[in-house]
Amino acid sequence: MSVTFPRGFRASGVVAGMKPSRRRDLGLLVVDGEASAAGLFTTNAFAAAPVELARKRIIGGSARAAVVNSGQANAGTGSRGLEDAERTTGEVAGALGLAPDGVIPCSTGVIGEPIHLDEYLAALPELTRGLSEHGGDAFAQAIMTTDTVPKTAAAERDGVRVGGCAKGVGMIAPDLRLATMLAFVTIDARVATEHVRRLASEVLEPRFESLSVDGCTSTNDTVLLLASGAGGGEPVAPGTAAWTSLTDALVEVADSLLQQLARDAEGGHHVVLITVEGAETEADARRAAKAIADSPLVKTAVFGGDPNPGRILQAIGSSGARFEPSRVRAWLGDVPVIQDGAIAPSYFDGAFEAAHAALAGRDVEIRVRLGDGDGSSTALGVDLSYGYVKINAEYHT
Amino acid sequence: MSVTFPRGFRASGVVAGMKPSRRRDLGLLVVDGEASAAGLFTTNAFAAAPVELARKRIIGGSARAAVVNSGQANAGTGSRGLEDAERTTGEVAGALGLAPDGVIPCSTGVIGEPIHLDEYLAALPELTRGLSEHGGDAFAQAIMTTDTVPKTAAAERDGVRVGGCAKGVGMIAPDLRLATMLAFVTIDARVATEHVRRLASEVLEPRFESLSVDGCTSTNDTVLLLASGAGGGEPVAPGTAAWTSLTDALVEVADSLLQQLARDAEGGHHVVLITVEGAETEADARRAAKAIADSPLVKTAVFGGDPNPGRILQAIGSSGARFEPSRVRAWLGDVPVIQDGAIAPSYFDGAFEAAHAALAGRDVEIRVRLGDGDGSSTALGVDLSYGYVKINAEYHT
Repeated sequence: MSVTFPRGFRASGVVAGMKPSRRRDLGLLVVDGEASAAGLFTTNAFAAAPVELARKRIIGGSARAAVVNSGQANAGTGSRGLEDAERTTGEVAGALGLAPDGVIPCSTGVIGEPIHLDEYLAALPELTRGLSEHGGDAFAQAIMTTDTVPKTAAAERDGVRVGGCAKGVGMIAPDLRLATMLAFVTIDARVATEHVRRLASEVLEPRFESLSVDGCTSTNDTVLLLASGAGGGEPVAPGTAAWTSLTDALVEVADSLLQQLARDAEGGHHVVLITVEGAETEADARRAAKAIADSPLVKTAVFGGDPNPGRILQAIGSSGARFEPSRVRAWLGDVPVIQDGAIAPSYFDGAFEAAHAALAGRDVEIRVRLGDGDGSSTALGVDLSYGYVKINAEYHT
Repeated sequence: MSVTFPRGFRASGVVAGMKPSRRRDLGLLVVDGEASAAGLFTTNAFAAAPVELARKRIIGGSARAAVVNSGQANAGTGSRGLEDAERTTGEVAGALGLAPDGVIPCSTGVIGEPIHLDEYLAALPELTRGLSEHGGDAFAQAIMTTDTVPKTAAAERDGVRVGGCAKGVGMIAPDLRLATMLAFVTIDARVATEHVRRLASEVLEPRFESLSVDGCTSTNDTVLLLASGAGGGEPVAPGTAAWTSLTDALVEVADSLLQQLARDAEGGHHVVLITVEGAETEADARRAAKAIADSPLVKTAVFGGDPNPGRILQAIGSSGARFEPSRVRAWLGDVPVIQDGAIAPSYFDGAFEAAHAALAGRDVEIRVRLGDGDGSSTALGVDLSYGYVKINAEYHT
């Protein structure tokens, strides 16, 4: 159950030989019919060549195919990188009988290394031949770099199907300089481009942006949302019951992918859900939540099983979020650890053990109330372990 | 040679018993005569009680004494924290026959834990009795938390003496939730308050802000600059040769303290000097330099001895600095690794070994040229090792 769960999508994934592991490393996702499409891309100023091209091609609001290579990020590759992205998508378009502009490229892998073109092009016939309505899992495998498991999800509401897959375990991985979070989400309802864009920005963007493995924004991050319309029915528009159902299904798929990404994070032992409420604005809540998720001090405390409200206080205080310090409260699980902007007296008076226990499980919850405002936000983070350092330091070239 | 190297300063440091290690934990620095003073304080919204009080007291531009306790940060302690800071400095002022407003408090240690008042107050007679022109080293020891060595420096130019000491190994330390960078710099020239402030903001601020052990801004960071005037002579004012000499001596002391802080950083094996030049503005250069210094991916790469220009590219690209990507260049030591915004072709063509060698020593240099602008900045960072994770995760309460 992956991107081909919704009707109107076919996919495939093959071993082209670009990845040292010799696993699947070239994936193709095709929409049968004119698909409404929206994309979310990295904000990194050194956006990879495929991102530059994809950003341009998605403007039209349609896309007929997405092709993904894993092994080389085609980032930091200069003008040659752009030529390679155009060349490869041109060949894919030719093989499928499509206009090149309808093919969205994505790459993930070593930054600075050009795509291994010979292997890529030689694998195209097998790739297109392999396209199938059951190809979602092969596609999900082909986009992996150092992910230990493929991440896929599917949901159905009122006859509308939503599917998705994603990859990413950190900006970087063992053997070289692998990169990137990629996610593909498919819908078989009929949805106008403007509404697909709205779903992407309102449902997908805040969710995928809430995930932080190491606070490092890759050069290649891409989230694609494609609607095939192959499920038939009336176009789904905002303000209707069908819109609510579709949104619910999309939320389910996105949340599932996010949880899977967090659980497979480099060296992570814990998944940390941070909820910030009562902020003046959503942006303030987001700043505070991100600051906690990205703090190496909070992350090591979670790894070490040390409740440590002082580190949460420190992270909120330096986040740039606006708030009145004396009104801030926070909880580890259900245990109050910060009260009136200070470490809760109960923490030193017996609640330490309960706070310690709140860090014992795989899932850790940190809740913060900044004040009485309406702004809220969540962030999904992971702990910082010896494993992260090992993966990112030991296996060098 | 420490804060008492310049004339007009006396200091002491005693074991009050507030620190579990039972080492010196209460320090006092006194200026004989009316001192011109300036302070730099943390930007953390949860500034500790002593920081709140110090900020208020320094406004007048004078200070007669600084008293520092290590063991409890007196941060996250609410209204009681402020009462304790007022009470303790009041007692110190009384013992010295000074007005309370002339006494600047600093604390470092566990966030959330109140100052151990009984031990603090009981030690005051010994502390004031111990004041001496040779007390700088005892003072430098008293302000340490998990520093492995005291950090002191001294310089003399044209008869003007500058001294200093500092502490800090990261926001956090082994046994609990210790905190903070503190630095005290003393001058025996006559310098008007407005000019002491200028020296603090123009010489000390950019230097101390360039240091980043883990990117975490403590609740207690404080830098104090005190001029006694005890060296005599004309008041030193900008635009004179004496001003240049004084500035040079101040730079020497500040840079020495920074190097000592970086070398004693938690778990650090390498000191990484990042220089960014050619930026549109100094702020852009600073953003890029900080982003590289704080990137866990760059830090683990340095720890692992892996050149890895893709990680430098990634960090610059997500820093928020403005620049034209295709013009960016970077070097590891003297080895070009980024050229025209892409990984330098030479890197894949033999220069990898040279880049690898540039990471072998204790000191690592990363140079970046963003474009042709006049903005430049430096950052001093450290690598991210198993040691950092161990210190911050394993030793929990």
